[in-house]
Amino acid sequence: MARPSSLSGFPEWLPAGRLLEQQILDTLRRTFELHGFAPIETRAVEPLAQLERKGEIDKEIYVLERLQAARHATEDSERGTERQLGLHFDLTVPFARYVVENAGRLVFPFKRYQIQKVWRGERPQEGRFREFLQADIDVVGAGELPAHYEIELPLVMLEALRSLPIPAVHMRVNNRKVVEGFYRGIGLEDIDGALRVVDKLDKIGSAAVSDVLISQELATAQQAEKVLALAAITAADLSFVDAVQDLGVRSDLLDTGLAELAELVEQAGEAAPGAVVADLRIARGLDYYTGSVYETTLLGHENLGSICSGGRYDSLAAVGSNTRYPGVGLSIGVSRLVSRIIGDSLATMSRPVPTAVLVAVVDADRRTESARIAAALRARGIPADVSPTAAKFGKQIRAADRLAIPFVWFPGEPGASDQVKDVRSGEQTDADMTSWTPPAEDLWPRMVRG
Amino acid sequence: MARPSSLSGFPEWLPAGRLLEQQILDTLRRTFELHGFAPIETRAVEPLAQLERKGEIDKEIYVLERLQAARHATEDSERGTERQLGLHFDLTVPFARYVVENAGRLVFPFKRYQIQKVWRGERPQEGRFREFLQADIDVVGAGELPAHYEIELPLVMLEALRSLPIPAVHMRVNNRKVVEGFYRGIGLEDIDGALRVVDKLDKIGSAAVSDVLISQELATAQQAEKVLALAAITAADLSFVDAVQDLGVRSDLLDTGLAELAELVEQAGEAAPGAVVADLRIARGLDYYTGSVYETTLLGHENLGSICSGGRYDSLAAVGSNTRYPGVGLSIGVSRLVSRIIGDSLATMSRPVPTAVLVAVVDADRRTESARIAAALRARGIPADVSPTAAKFGKQIRAADRLAIPFVWFPGEPGASDQVKDVRSGEQTDADMTSWTPPAEDLWPRMVRG
Repeated sequence: MARPSSLSGFPEWLPAGRLLEQQILDTLRRTFELHGFAPIETRAVEPLAQLERKGEIDKEIYVLERLQAARHATEDSERGTERQLGLHFDLTVPFARYVVENAGRLVFPFKRYQIQKVWRGERPQEGRFREFLQADIDVVGAGELPAHYEIELPLVMLEALRSLPIPAVHMRVNNRKVVEGFYRGIGLEDIDGALRVVDKLDKIGSAAVSDVLISQELATAQQAEKVLALAAITAADLSFVDAVQDLGVRSDLLDTGLAELAELVEQAGEAAPGAVVADLRIARGLDYYTGSVYETTLLGHENLGSICSGGRYDSLAAVGSNTRYPGVGLSIGVSRLVSRIIGDSLATMSRPVPTAVLVAVVDADRRTESARIAAALRARGIPADVSPTAAKFGKQIRAADRLAIPFVWFPGEPGASDQVKDVRSGEQTDADMTSWTPPAEDLWPRMVRG
Repeated sequence: MARPSSLSGFPEWLPAGRLLEQQILDTLRRTFELHGFAPIETRAVEPLAQLERKGEIDKEIYVLERLQAARHATEDSERGTERQLGLHFDLTVPFARYVVENAGRLVFPFKRYQIQKVWRGERPQEGRFREFLQADIDVVGAGELPAHYEIELPLVMLEALRSLPIPAVHMRVNNRKVVEGFYRGIGLEDIDGALRVVDKLDKIGSAAVSDVLISQELATAQQAEKVLALAAITAADLSFVDAVQDLGVRSDLLDTGLAELAELVEQAGEAAPGAVVADLRIARGLDYYTGSVYETTLLGHENLGSICSGGRYDSLAAVGSNTRYPGVGLSIGVSRLVSRIIGDSLATMSRPVPTAVLVAVVDADRRTESARIAAALRARGIPADVSPTAAKFGKQIRAADRLAIPFVWFPGEPGASDQVKDVRSGEQTDADMTSWTPPAEDLWPRMVRG
């Protein structure tokens, strides 16, 4: 086999990295389940027509074809968009489809979490992958959904993020009603168009945003100035309300949005002091958001981009023109976080294997005896492996040491007790496989904050 | 949104089904980790050239293209096989590539488990999906690998299967050295070709196998008769050795294979009585197996096909002509098992949500009070949710009942204690959020064998 090379944008970890990722996923899952979110998993593929409905990122979709079909394709029906499948690029679109498909068998409001890989054919960059793990929570109602979920769901995510080995976060929040109400108040017509330009503010700067708004005839110079003045407002307290009102724009939608945003900032400020900041430039380009929107940066790692984003939506999932399933959801970019945790050694694992005890093999004929000891330890919940060969004990101990396995077990000669050696201290004591237990911190690989 | 329809071959479960699948995955993971297997995960894609090397199933590969490339493709370089990516169809090929790629950073023998989705563009059938979960264990050595792993790994899988809510299994085992030694002994030349035909024995019957062997000039009529006589031998004890030798064929490779197979059957018979059967028709079509091969059927569900298969391989992963990484591995078809468990109600979940306690909301203004109670319960590891609205208590209790949430919590009026109601018995008692604990069996959703 030719020497294989890694593929840019498709991250893979060594076993210690995967152990660390698993502990992070376990932590997220536990937080979500403690809050009553039920798990679902959706298929990796959706009909291409569904994926393309969702706005901006159609160019990044991976399309699937069966190999034989691809080989014989001559632009015939086999390649028609209708029947083509693509890999999902987020977990929101598949979730919306799942809700509509299973509506009769779900109880609403339906709270679910979903932790899966997604794929985007983007150019890979630091923290931006072509294949990555997302961890989503959403709640959807049938027909209606109380506004309090717009406060509760970001708090669940903040709790989840606090439990991970990462620095503190800032969640920047806004409300689409504020932005839309303000834009209408100053007379803009293509609200979504303007939003998509403002969403690039952090990337291209305010002068360029103003230029694009004017050149694309989305706003006049005076309107662009107001748009940028709104986007400049940020506050960790309720002072943003006065700042917006001082711009002299009025509309009912703006008032509703300001009241909702104020309640979010106030309640989140009590529950998670300092973590939530009103930032009126947050737009979230995807045009399905209709209320609160969220973005989250890691302090000291702002270059990573948002690690947890989402918002309120009202028309993502609907059956015909009848039932709508409004929802609120947020998504953590798990691979982005894990790659930074591993890359910057924010945490490491105490060892790269589950094994707590390596049972030595005295000689090849006595392997069964060692296997029996390992089985007895496992039966009491102690991860145990048997040495690959009956090498000299020194070599077997070094093999354990190389994997940071803390204990090596030596089967006793007839009439003598078994012994167990702590590889780190060298201390060796008599031990009984039916009762000996390692210290709790040695039982399983531990995450150690760096 | 048009009413979406499910896609044949891409199974999805309701939340209760996913909870059950998660418990099964947790159980497998725990068994593998107790045995010292370290986790890895590989990317979902491999270069098409790698995937196509592995024999028979190239026609079933899903190929990826980025949407824009697909739209503008005119058979240009963008679609060349070299650069094309396909979804992996098993976890063995990616694992072999991972081992070679990371050889310098792994400690050998390397034991890993890997639980991931794989994709095959086959026609969907009962128990046969286009997207499904596999759970694999493998051990690979650098240069060499002791034969005892061919006995130990199937025993780990039998232990894992015993812990699941399924009937007993039969693992049918054979050894490629027996088959190859025997085939050479009777003068066959295209051993792999003959093996692939014999692998279809269960599907097409012995007359058809004989016809194909003869018509494809893989064997004469006399040779075909011997081949079928070997394939007819099966035994749960060592009697198969005499049965093979009675066929009068001799070769050194056959003797080696018989000795290895005898040791496997004998040792596995001691460790897992009745679970392992020598069956000399088991060939495992993929031509990379070189020693023991395994297939597993679920008693009473033989129509499901093999639920756990694998074998010993020596040349799947190699760097140039230098280092080889021989291995032994087995794979459980998790989706196949889960679909049968759900379909036949072999097990169900005690409830479809994690929530053990639904905290009622007295009126909308007092929602924060209920949220505080839920937080206190969660802080002590009790999954708790807050009622969506301040509906009448009767309605809030019925909402809990509909999700089989066992307890509803009522915040006390000023000066009065909180109360908790067991929804099943109707019993309601005073309760303190800092000390009340549900019975252990109600804390998390439980798998109940049906």
